[in-house]
Amino acid sequence: MAEKTYKIGIVGATGAVGLEIVECLLQQCFPTSHPPTLYASARSSGKIVNTCYGPLSVEEFSLSKVLDEHFDVVFLAVSGSFALKFARDIASGTAIVIDNSSAFRLEEDVPLVIPEINLCSVTKDCKLVANPNCTTAIAAMALWPLHCAHGGIRRCIISTYQAASGAGMEGMEELKKGCLSQMETGETPTADVFAHPLPFNVIPHIDKFQENGYTKEEMKVTWEMRKIFACHTMSISCTAVRIPTLRAHSESITIETFHSISPTSARASLEKQPGVVIVDNPSQNLYPMPLSATCRNDVEVGRLRQNLVFGDHGLDLFMCGDQLLRGAALNAVLIAKGLLLGTVEQSGIQGFSVSKG
Amino acid sequence: MAEKTYKIGIVGATGAVGLEIVECLLQQCFPTSHPPTLYASARSSGKIVNTCYGPLSVEEFSLSKVLDEHFDVVFLAVSGSFALKFARDIASGTAIVIDNSSAFRLEEDVPLVIPEINLCSVTKDCKLVANPNCTTAIAAMALWPLHCAHGGIRRCIISTYQAASGAGMEGMEELKKGCLSQMETGETPTADVFAHPLPFNVIPHIDKFQENGYTKEEMKVTWEMRKIFACHTMSISCTAVRIPTLRAHSESITIETFHSISPTSARASLEKQPGVVIVDNPSQNLYPMPLSATCRNDVEVGRLRQNLVFGDHGLDLFMCGDQLLRGAALNAVLIAKGLLLGTVEQSGIQGFSVSKG
Repeated sequence: MAEKTYKIGIVGATGAVGLEIVECLLQQCFPTSHPPTLYASARSSGKIVNTCYGPLSVEEFSLSKVLDEHFDVVFLAVSGSFALKFARDIASGTAIVIDNSSAFRLEEDVPLVIPEINLCSVTKDCKLVANPNCTTAIAAMALWPLHCAHGGIRRCIISTYQAASGAGMEGMEELKKGCLSQMETGETPTADVFAHPLPFNVIPHIDKFQENGYTKEEMKVTWEMRKIFACHTMSISCTAVRIPTLRAHSESITIETFHSISPTSARASLEKQPGVVIVDNPSQNLYPMPLSATCRNDVEVGRLRQNLVFGDHGLDLFMCGDQLLRGAALNAVLIAKGLLLGTVEQSGIQGFSVSKG
Repeated sequence: MAEKTYKIGIVGATGAVGLEIVECLLQQCFPTSHPPTLYASARSSGKIVNTCYGPLSVEEFSLSKVLDEHFDVVFLAVSGSFALKFARDIASGTAIVIDNSSAFRLEEDVPLVIPEINLCSVTKDCKLVANPNCTTAIAAMALWPLHCAHGGIRRCIISTYQAASGAGMEGMEELKKGCLSQMETGETPTADVFAHPLPFNVIPHIDKFQENGYTKEEMKVTWEMRKIFACHTMSISCTAVRIPTLRAHSESITIETFHSISPTSARASLEKQPGVVIVDNPSQNLYPMPLSATCRNDVEVGRLRQNLVFGDHGLDLFMCGDQLLRGAALNAVLIAKGLLLGTVEQSGIQGFSVSKG
């Protein structure tokens, strides 16, 4: 019997995430009936993009066109407002919609999914699935096995080192051009995409400021992690910082667990987690870095050490993951794979409950 | 009566910190009898450096030459091993020695000083004073007033974003050249000064790894902060990370205090601390950044918010300080100013004791 194949549409296909979804589909051997159909705004209509499937032409998006194609899966790599307008309508057709925006992530009827962690949260009749925020998705890969094996995470403090790619292709271009011009002229370049020039700078401001002084990016980590872990009492805070790197996010994380934890027990838990690779050999100068994590599917975890503040219930770690892969496109494609093909390796740990510490 | 003037020597004068000490002396209107005398290794002997005092020639260091000059102050901007070999001998002469290395920082008979905080720890007959590690000095400026006004800091978790200047002039040069070559060729440059290429990368490794998994840079923050604050029970951990910026360090800090704390009470304490400037107006996109903190004497503190993990005993903040100024040269010159001239503005808070929480 011939292998079943699927018809795929990608909306927002000319952006950094959209283009990466095309690559991930082939790299993940997703059985497509045709190369994916690419949609974008009128501005990009007719454009030819070179992909791993060969040159593909971009069509202007319209809801009726997408519905008429009877897709099996439609990936949305668009803004939250665009997703809000069209996602549910597309999902009313034949396709499962996997949305990369923040529009539906906290909606009760929309599962927020990292397939290796909580694919089980998608019910059979579910047609709209949300892909988490990149910082959340990367951190969750390491935090989940630690949470499950050590009685639950009681407190979690994250500081991020986020790449320009979080602001799309334009963000990466602005950083590259700005670096070159600053090196050539000695002058600080101007900024359009970011609030301030990013070359040789650090900007502790990603997304909008909220009333509590945190940015929305920082609050997303709290809100989304709790939903993904189905643990609404987990105490978690984040400081989200943009730095001059291109496409891998790093995160410095301190946790306190309800049960005792050690670098050895943490390593044992992390080793069992699909999607995680331990890079932690200081004597060989091996630890997670954007240099090694860029274009890598697995997130890198290292610098495991007993935290000096929380003692034998505390662990420090450093991690790094490709923002466009685990933080966006790969996670979305793995959701599709998990739902349609059932071939995503999942964490063995289920039915977990947090200790009353 | 003519103002008393002082005779100053600087050893290691051709390095990034040494050169900055020369600038700080003039900028701080330090009353010198002559331009400072510059010493370096044989390699730099005879070299002419352009300084704010005009062109100055560099002499080869020898202990006897330095002793013969009967200096009032000698600044050491040299390695720990060099300082170990010569600092006490120089201090046996006429000069007060202010050492920027880590060699004596934890020695019981050597005060470790941030003048705005603990100049009082220098006794009258003291001839050797240690300048703190840059990350410690920058963080301490914000932590001290919070520590004093809120019953003491119970727990402190720091993640750093450290500039290339921490590795001296060579570090800054390697970053600049590497960025330019990567922009021009698309190839990752090689690394000599850093363990890995720094352009567009993040390296969670500064100084040597210790047995407990922390680096020495990270442990310095714990060890030195406790000594400066004279609070040997303070629970503090750090993750020290090198990023591609030039000369200002940023730090993301979470604290838990024994008494309750709020962004408002924190701001009130910080406003009283000389050497600190609050940059915290998110609605105007104002927060601490290397772009604004570079070449600035004051450290910038902002992103003040009630921490989500420690509730009304928790505060998050982000800060940024020039690594070569507060983190090295300026602090050293202010120590000299405080000891010889008594003109450093000190924090009003003394006689503080930590609550038993």
